[in-house]
Amino acid sequence: MDENNSTPTLRDIREAHARIRSLIRRTPVLTSSVLSEMAGAELHFKCETFQKTGAFKARGAANAVLSLSDEEAGRGVATHSSGNHAAALAWAAGRRGITATVVMPRTASRVKIASVERYGGRIVFCEPNHRAREEAAERIVRETGATLVHPYNDSRVIAGQGTVALELMEDVPGLGAIICPVGGGGLLAGTAIVAGSCGRPVRVFAGEPEGAADASLSLASGLRRPVENPSSIADGLLAFVGDKTFPIIQAGVERIATVSDSEILDAVRRLLGILKVAVEPSGAVGYAAVASGRLPVTGLKVGVILSGGNLDLERVLG
Amino acid sequence: MDENNSTPTLRDIREAHARIRSLIRRTPVLTSSVLSEMAGAELHFKCETFQKTGAFKARGAANAVLSLSDEEAGRGVATHSSGNHAAALAWAAGRRGITATVVMPRTASRVKIASVERYGGRIVFCEPNHRAREEAAERIVRETGATLVHPYNDSRVIAGQGTVALELMEDVPGLGAIICPVGGGGLLAGTAIVAGSCGRPVRVFAGEPEGAADASLSLASGLRRPVENPSSIADGLLAFVGDKTFPIIQAGVERIATVSDSEILDAVRRLLGILKVAVEPSGAVGYAAVASGRLPVTGLKVGVILSGGNLDLERVLG
Repeated sequence: MDENNSTPTLRDIREAHARIRSLIRRTPVLTSSVLSEMAGAELHFKCETFQKTGAFKARGAANAVLSLSDEEAGRGVATHSSGNHAAALAWAAGRRGITATVVMPRTASRVKIASVERYGGRIVFCEPNHRAREEAAERIVRETGATLVHPYNDSRVIAGQGTVALELMEDVPGLGAIICPVGGGGLLAGTAIVAGSCGRPVRVFAGEPEGAADASLSLASGLRRPVENPSSIADGLLAFVGDKTFPIIQAGVERIATVSDSEILDAVRRLLGILKVAVEPSGAVGYAAVASGRLPVTGLKVGVILSGGNLDLERVLG
Repeated sequence: MDENNSTPTLRDIREAHARIRSLIRRTPVLTSSVLSEMAGAELHFKCETFQKTGAFKARGAANAVLSLSDEEAGRGVATHSSGNHAAALAWAAGRRGITATVVMPRTASRVKIASVERYGGRIVFCEPNHRAREEAAERIVRETGATLVHPYNDSRVIAGQGTVALELMEDVPGLGAIICPVGGGGLLAGTAIVAGSCGRPVRVFAGEPEGAADASLSLASGLRRPVENPSSIADGLLAFVGDKTFPIIQAGVERIATVSDSEILDAVRRLLGILKVAVEPSGAVGYAAVASGRLPVTGLKVGVILSGGNLDLERVLG
């Protein structure tokens, strides 16, 4: 892959895996007879909850940072996302010994700020609106020459996220379907590329919050359509599916099921109580979609990606 | 091992592993840079939380059940423990297609009863005192010819529990110490045998609740000493260290640190919030001992056994 704009292939994802494997964790795949019985399918949970920085975002960020030339790297990286991607980019930059600048709204939560600071990220605050964030990020890029690493609409990031499915399919031979959450679509696009290139039919599905159902609406209508004021307890999935990720999703994803916040919370509680894993609401949305019965997976061997574990316990259990 | 009463050896534990490995899960070993930094040691968490039935007890129960001759097996197994061992024995018996009878006090919690029932165990209720339970179990053995499988004071059970450390040492070469919780001592004895037979120095430590500190008192005084009315939030660790497990512990365990209920709860919350794993209070006591700073593990590569995940979330977080 020569360009940051081309559509990644299985080969790019394999190269990404070779590039990042010494930095990331090969996360375990867990099973639960109880959860499989409840779903009427053989579920294999790929636990990115245990990934470095607590989410799969470490993979895409690491691939982007390690793909830079030394000269590019010397000028640093930047982003205007404030969630798991920001922490992941700060972490990846720290591992390469370069600077990551994260633009965050002045209103960002202490937890998000602390998470970026913990990994040594440099934070630039701005007004709490999308335009202010983009402008601040552009100014940083202009002034420092930093490379902007978008949280999902970036081929290197998509290739990195695809390594989740690569490991899952290596570790669990014979999967009939893979399911993951969708927000901006980086993880889902990477998953679709891997599943579509493996030489045998592996169906790809996704779960999306009802309150931020732009990807499912877009997939159904064939046109990328935002929703106004997206809102969900799955706060990592509010992004609008990207113009780079959407065509890959259209080509390779069979169905996206929407789930309510209450279904997402049930899924989080069940994963905690039965699988014994702390999964954040956004990370549990793929499983919530399976549990909803809205996906045709009965009797299949199914890979379910639990994409992150940065759970606010009191919010979920309180 | 010909007899149920002899002290198990590393060879017995290897044989137990070969016997049970198709029934049990090879549980993953997780790490967290944050928890390692906090402890000043490189921690490797062996997560028996993800074991069949939710605890390491599945290993000892499976080894005991699979060690029976067909004739013995035909008469079933019995126990008068009502915790994780009871569920594990019911599960193991179910896998062999034989009957497990579990004597439980009439006052046992719905959760414990449901857990045994889920695995097809036959429950016999008795008055809520130790003597009534032992008598009921003896009567069942007399009447049915069932084999009594003690939760820890049994060589086959100890050998089964030793397979946790066997896998841990295979998966993490170069450990300098292993730590686990101690109640009746089956897991700790099995761990001490493995660590003591591997041909290089691996120190063995344990954690024990302050309110049930019989094992640490016994180890310090050289004599097996019960405590009256043991009590702790770690309700799986209230048992009195066994006369079969204690000599093995004396021979191979360097120190047992006691921890308060508040330290145990802190450990549970930290494992949930940082490692992202639901660990029950009893299962977190080894980690609580490490976190207390009362064990000499600074700078070591340490295996920490998280022994079970059957967590009552509301009790811990409420």
